This record gives sequence, structure tokens and C-alpha cells, in this order.
Amino acid sequence: MKPLAVSMGDPAGIGLELAARMWADRSAPAFFLVGDPGAFERASARLGLPTPRLKVAADASEIGYFDHEILSVLLVPLVREEIPGTPHVANAQPIIRAVELGVEAVRLGSASALVTLPVAKSVLQEAGFGFPGHTEFVAHLTHGDAHSGARGPVMMLAGPQLKVALATIHTPLAEVPAQITSARIAHVGRVAGEALRRDFGVAKPRLALCGFNPHAGENGRIGREELDIINPAAAILRSEGWDIGDAKSADSLFHEGARVSYDAAIAIYHDQGLIPIKTLHFWDAVNVTLGLPIVRTSPDHGVGFDIAGKGVARADSFRAALHMAAAMAARRASA
Amino acid sequence: MKPLAVSMGDPAGIGLELAARMWADRSAPAFFLVGDPGAFERASARLGLPTPRLKVAADASEIGYFDHEILSVLLVPLVREEIPGTPHVANAQPIIRAVELGVEAVRLGSASALVTLPVAKSVLQEAGFGFPGHTEFVAHLTHGDAHSGARGPVMMLAGPQLKVALATIHTPLAEVPAQITSARIAHVGRVAGEALRRDFGVAKPRLALCGFNPHAGENGRIGREELDIINPAAAILRSEGWDIGDAKSADSLFHEGARVSYDAAIAIYHDQGLIPIKTLHFWDAVNVTLGLPIVRTSPDHGVGFDIAGKGVARADSFRAALHMAAAMAARRASA
Repeated sequence: MKPLAVSMGDPAGIGLELAARMWADRSAPAFFLVGDPGAFERASARLGLPTPRLKVAADASEIGYFDHEILSVLLVPLVREEIPGTPHVANAQPIIRAVELGVEAVRLGSASALVTLPVAKSVLQEAGFGFPGHTEFVAHLTHGDAHSGARGPVMMLAGPQLKVALATIHTPLAEVPAQITSARIAHVGRVAGEALRRDFGVAKPRLALCGFNPHAGENGRIGREELDIINPAAAILRSEGWDIGDAKSADSLFHEGARVSYDAAIAIYHDQGLIPIKTLHFWDAVNVTLGLPIVRTSPDHGVGFDIAGKGVARADSFRAALHMAAAMAARRASA
Repeated sequence: MKPLAVSMGDPAGIGLELAARMWADRSAPAFFLVGDPGAFERASARLGLPTPRLKVAADASEIGYFDHEILSVLLVPLVREEIPGTPHVANAQPIIRAVELGVEAVRLGSASALVTLPVAKSVLQEAGFGFPGHTEFVAHLTHGDAHSGARGPVMMLAGPQLKVALATIHTPLAEVPAQITSARIAHVGRVAGEALRRDFGVAKPRLALCGFNPHAGENGRIGREELDIINPAAAILRSEGWDIGDAKSADSLFHEGARVSYDAAIAIYHDQGLIPIKTLHFWDAVNVTLGLPIVRTSPDHGVGFDIAGKGVARADSFRAALHMAAAMAARRASA
């Protein structure tokens, strides 16, 4: 199988440290870096790791060679040398370009999947980047490509004990009721269900659906979103053959006994899904983009400007993101 | 110390089973039952437990005698014999009366604290009960009593690893933004902080405050509740000397590493606090009412009509509620 493409993320953050650590570790699935080779070398040096042997390529088609001694780097030069902890907007373009080239490498078959290192939305937006995050940007970049089945992007957080797909992401909570529709929630369920089959090898996916209100609204006594929007979405999904019940009280869905009853839960809003996943899997959850023509994962944390350059960032989530991307790509390839 | 008063809850639910189990177990802190002695005997019999020896009292002042062989029962006769799993509105009055007499017993000094077994809100409301739940009802019953410090009720869920106080409880989520004010959140923090000192023995309580929006609003980019309402509440609390920071991203507040940094978290809405507590402590969390003249706890689950009478209900949470009430009452008594 082809190696994974890893986009460098913000060089002032912890991303390149994690990449350097995983490269030195040699136990991760094969990957190449899309980014600045000098920044990678400096990140390695700051961690006190052996100087990495790099092979720099100017074009994805040159990423032919790969072994465990030489890290291939698809070149995206920084505009300014990074200062750990202090991002600079001048590097926004190379940060974005690394994602574009990473996606391109997967589309062209030079990489099996994309793993993105964290970016700072505020830095990119200052430079005019018009997407809420990687999820939407990767969807945009692959918009014209063929994809069988329901099309995402749908954001999923996945850890060893729990997978949660989100019906809304970075929406102010007060605006969520106006943004959710039965069609949208059904679509999220469909994308999640198909991804469980295609990418995670679950033959008969079982989905669980969170309510929006306390006690899932208690049959309309504490809010009507369940009756008016969420349960009808479950009915749509059931009519298509999916294994899903009506909205359940979200607080009772995430303990061990409940988790064994489903393969993925659908959360209506960000914290509803992120609170349980980060309570259970703070270090090793993975952010997965479902329903796209390419496989994309990322660590489930941000740029970590406050700890960048200090050598204390934990690579657990990035490691898990590499393993998950490789496993998903292998399943797609063998299908 | 005086025994705990345990109100029977809905006799068609699992409450009396739990009481029978804990009584037979003999390892719980001393308690007496407020309710129907026949219903208790039947619950014991359904579990195959030895016939309990009961001493029935018609008045709290008669609950003088207490030992581990004879369970005192403060008499509140049912109107109809219970049918496990099938509640009857005719019993709403005795269910309510048991809570009233339990509160009365604590107020008069016959009991050290009140532990309430679960009631079904819908059954009580059908009978005209005008309170959302025990929390508000117990507050009402003790309204005229002296209480030093900030007055609740504030609802807290407490387990061995996490304590969460709620700024709103059974409010439809869409209505939460209109219900929260800086004053209200500050009040919840104050009540929680004082309770940590008085009832839980935490000399210098450290409080954590959840944001409302994803990423705690990202400085206004994803909603303004943090800037306009929640952080000002933190500022009020800090000005009073409380150890509390501004709103934090709720998804990052509940993993092990974060939990060690505070004694109690303040959640803005129901599921924000209940999801992490039930993910971590599904079986053994306790519902505690803070800031009242009397100590009141309860198991953190409902009536369980679906499993009532089957002998499968777990008593972990009720056991924890008894222990927590006894410990809290002991701290108050020794203060």
C-alpha cells in the first residue's frame, strides 16, 4: 500500500514535533510529510532526536521511493521560519498549500490517505481562508471526484471505546435548533452508517441517536426538537433499512453498558459528542472525515501553541490517526 | 448521630427494592423508612429476602429507637397496593407525603439527613404536584428555616471522580441562553463553593466553569454567551475570593488530567454536566441538593418502571447516596 500523506499544519504548533516523534519511533504506518523540510529538521532537533534523513520532492509524482530510513518530504516551503508558540500569518499560505498537495497526492494515487496536523483557524482566516476547518476544505478539494454512496463531509470522533458523528460542528449552541433538520440528521446517519461498513468493516452498523434536550425532551415536556426533528430523522433512516432507534437521553448513552449496544452515536451538537469522547479518550481519539472520496484523519487536538517547542506534546492521538487512516485506506483498497 | 430518613418514592418503581436490599445488607449507614411498611415487606419478599422486622411509628418523634435488627418505618400508608412497573396516580399523595415527613423528620432532629428514592414526575404532576422535582420541593419545604450562607437549591451530581453543579436543570436547551444570567451562574458557584467547604470538607474549593458554546465560544467567534454572561459570572466569584477561572471548553474539562485541577465543575445546562458524570459514574453517582438548611441526597436514576419487581435493579447509587448523606450530615454536625 502507498504511504500516508501528512500535512505539516501550523509550524508554530506542536504538529511537526509529533511528526518528528512518530518518524523517529518507526512504529507508525509509512508516511511522507507535505511541508517544509527545514521546519521538520528543526522540530526533530528541538526534541533532541537524531537528524532525520530526508528526500525532498517537488512533486507528488516523485514520491515514489519510501523506506524506513529516509523520510520523503513533498516540498512546501515556509515563508518565514517558525517560532514555536508564535504563529505568523505569513505562513498561512504554505499551511493551506500543504493540505492541498496532501489531498492531491491521495487523489493521484501517490498516497493512500491524508492525515492532517493541526492548523489554527484564526491564523488561516486572517489570511482569507474561507473554510471553518480541514473537514470542509478537504470536502471542497475533492468535490468533483466520484464517490459512491452518501457524500459527506461528516465529522466523526473515534476512539477505541466510542465513535461519535456530529450533526452540527462549530455552530453556536443557541443556533443549533434552527440548523438541524430531519434531512440533515438522516444524512449524517446515512454517511456514518456507510462509513462504518466501508471504512471500519462493520457489516451491520448499529447507530444510536442523541436527543437534544434533557431526558431527550421527555416526550415534548422539555422541548420539542426530538418529536419534531430528531425522531423523524430516525424514521427516515429506519425506512432505508438502518438499525437506529429514536432519540435517547444523551446522558445515558455513553457509559460502558450503553456503548456496547451501538457502533456509532450521532450527536446533535459539538459538545454532546466531544464531551464523552474526550472524557474517555482525551489522548487517543481521532478526528475522521466521513463520506469523502479520500480518507482523511487527524489528531483530535489543536495546535498547542502554549506547549509548542517544549517537547512535552503527546503523540498518542497522532499515532492513532495514522493507524486509523492506514486501516481505513486498506479496507477501501480491498473492497 | 441520628439515622437517615429515606422517603419511599414511587412504590411501583425500584425504590423500595433498593431500600430492602440495603436494609438486608446491613452495611449502609443507619436509616429509617418513610412510607408504607406493607409495600416494603412486599418488596423484600419479591427479592426473596428474609422478612424484615419493622417498627412502625405514626410520628417522627416516635422514631427514637433504632438498631440493626429492626427497621423503623414512619408510616405513610399507600392508597392502593402497588403494582411493580405500573404506577397509579392514587398513590401520588402518599409519595409526596413521604417526602414532606422526611423533611420534617430532619428539621425536627429525628433524622440527620434525607435520602429520597425516585418519584415519577408525570405521576405526581397528574395529581397536581407543582414542582419540577425533589430539589425544588425540598427547597420549598425548608424555605422558612435558617441557613447560613448562599441559599440553594443547587443540584449537584457527585461521584468518586467528579462533582458537577448545574446552572440550569430541566430547561429545554434552546431556552438556556435566555435563562442564564451572570448573577445566576455566580450564585450557583457560590452555593457550590460553600457546600464544598461545609458539606464535603474541602477547605479551599477550586471551581471550574464550563463554556456554553463549542470551544467555549472561541472568544466570541462561536457564540457570545461566554463573553457576555459566563465570564462575568467568574469575575464576580473571583471578586468574592473564589478560586475559579473563565469559562473553559467543556469537552476538555472532564478527562482525568483535567479533573484533578478542580473540586467541582459548574455546567451551564443539564447534559453538559450529566453526560460526563454518567459516562464516568453511571452506577454510583449521587444527586445532591446543595445550599439548603437540610442535607438531601438521592440516587442518580429514575423509578425504573421497566425493571421494577424483577429484582435486577442495582443499588450502587442508592448505597452511595446513603453514605454521602451520612458523611455530609456528620460534617455539618461537627461544624
